[in-house]
Amino acid sequence: MADEVVLLDFRPSPFGMRVRIALAEKGIKYEYREEDLKNKSPLLLQMNPVHKKIPVLIHEGKPICESLIAVQYIDEVWNDTNPLLPSDPYQRAQARFWADYVDKKIYDNFSKISASKGEEKEAAKKELIQVLKLLEEELGDKSYFGGHNFGFVDIPVVSYYPWFKALETFDSLNVGECSKFTAWAKRCLQKESVAKSIPDQRVINELFVELRKNSSTE
Amino acid sequence: MADEVVLLDFRPSPFGMRVRIALAEKGIKYEYREEDLKNKSPLLLQMNPVHKKIPVLIHEGKPICESLIAVQYIDEVWNDTNPLLPSDPYQRAQARFWADYVDKKIYDNFSKISASKGEEKEAAKKELIQVLKLLEEELGDKSYFGGHNFGFVDIPVVSYYPWFKALETFDSLNVGECSKFTAWAKRCLQKESVAKSIPDQRVINELFVELRKNSSTE
Repeated sequence: MADEVVLLDFRPSPFGMRVRIALAEKGIKYEYREEDLKNKSPLLLQMNPVHKKIPVLIHEGKPICESLIAVQYIDEVWNDTNPLLPSDPYQRAQARFWADYVDKKIYDNFSKISASKGEEKEAAKKELIQVLKLLEEELGDKSYFGGHNFGFVDIPVVSYYPWFKALETFDSLNVGECSKFTAWAKRCLQKESVAKSIPDQRVINELFVELRKNSSTE
Repeated sequence: MADEVVLLDFRPSPFGMRVRIALAEKGIKYEYREEDLKNKSPLLLQMNPVHKKIPVLIHEGKPICESLIAVQYIDEVWNDTNPLLPSDPYQRAQARFWADYVDKKIYDNFSKISASKGEEKEAAKKELIQVLKLLEEELGDKSYFGGHNFGFVDIPVVSYYPWFKALETFDSLNVGECSKFTAWAKRCLQKESVAKSIPDQRVINELFVELRKNSSTE
């Protein structure tokens, strides 16, 4: 069976990073295709007609859309290396809960910080720090959210990390006050699967500035 | 092993219905505890300190929060009766995709219809009908979203059905124009697991009127 894997993606996307990290954790070779989000390819529109968004994982010609669903798919199909979700159903439900929490809380606050000014911006920054504090609490004394091993919850959180760094630079978000979180992020970034999936900080910062410029002139 | 199962819930909740239907599909006996959402129980706040929301499934003293995560947990733990998710990883990813689509698209449009007036309300009604049309397309000629058997995608969709009926009554939403969808819903409602998990339409309608009254006087 030809195990053909293609990823339609956009390097700076925190959602794309999730799928890249999962593929790297499993040691899967794949064809990477960078999308121009202002001029999406016919393949992307064909493979994800509902949301028309990256990332799309294409495995043997069949698309898997939505990043956390793709990560679970990767974990289920390539289940002989580096399990990402725990095998115990309760632990698995807990991992899904925290990954879902990340999805519900981080992006919204990130967007609010970016789009607002003054008091509203400060409130959103405060809320994001509270989200990180709660994640620190869940992390506790474990090396990773998954325990001894890097896993399903670590992936979406670390994929936001370069975007938090951009907020530090451009919006004075003080991620440093979450020292346990910062230590965990550094631990993750030392992993080859993470390091090679996250673009250079310069790329994120440039895109951050461009997005802000565009939104202020709209 | 005492298989103690408790459900903290609120009868009219479409999220609670999901968990009740899954428990009924598996034939699990459980203790049902109705929550007063204006005065949440200490147990609810202790079991779901992050979101403080129903439903919470408590299995052997441990909480599982977020309805679709609870449904997956139920399917994984009681895996010998009526499987809800397909066994094939690709089919499973597809089921997760559509359940996630329902989560992302239906509630938002529902709230918009309820909260708005005039053109904005009409636009939201049109968008909700488009969501149902897309779901009809996905259903195709199958009996259920899961194929021959009622499954993971059917559960969240049918749990919204009584709320669609309320929109028909109070906001002239024409669900009837989605005839395939309506036929599917009737098929689901004939199932004992669904029928006994969905409250009387009168209860939904009364709550709908009360919620609208409260939101217009806020």
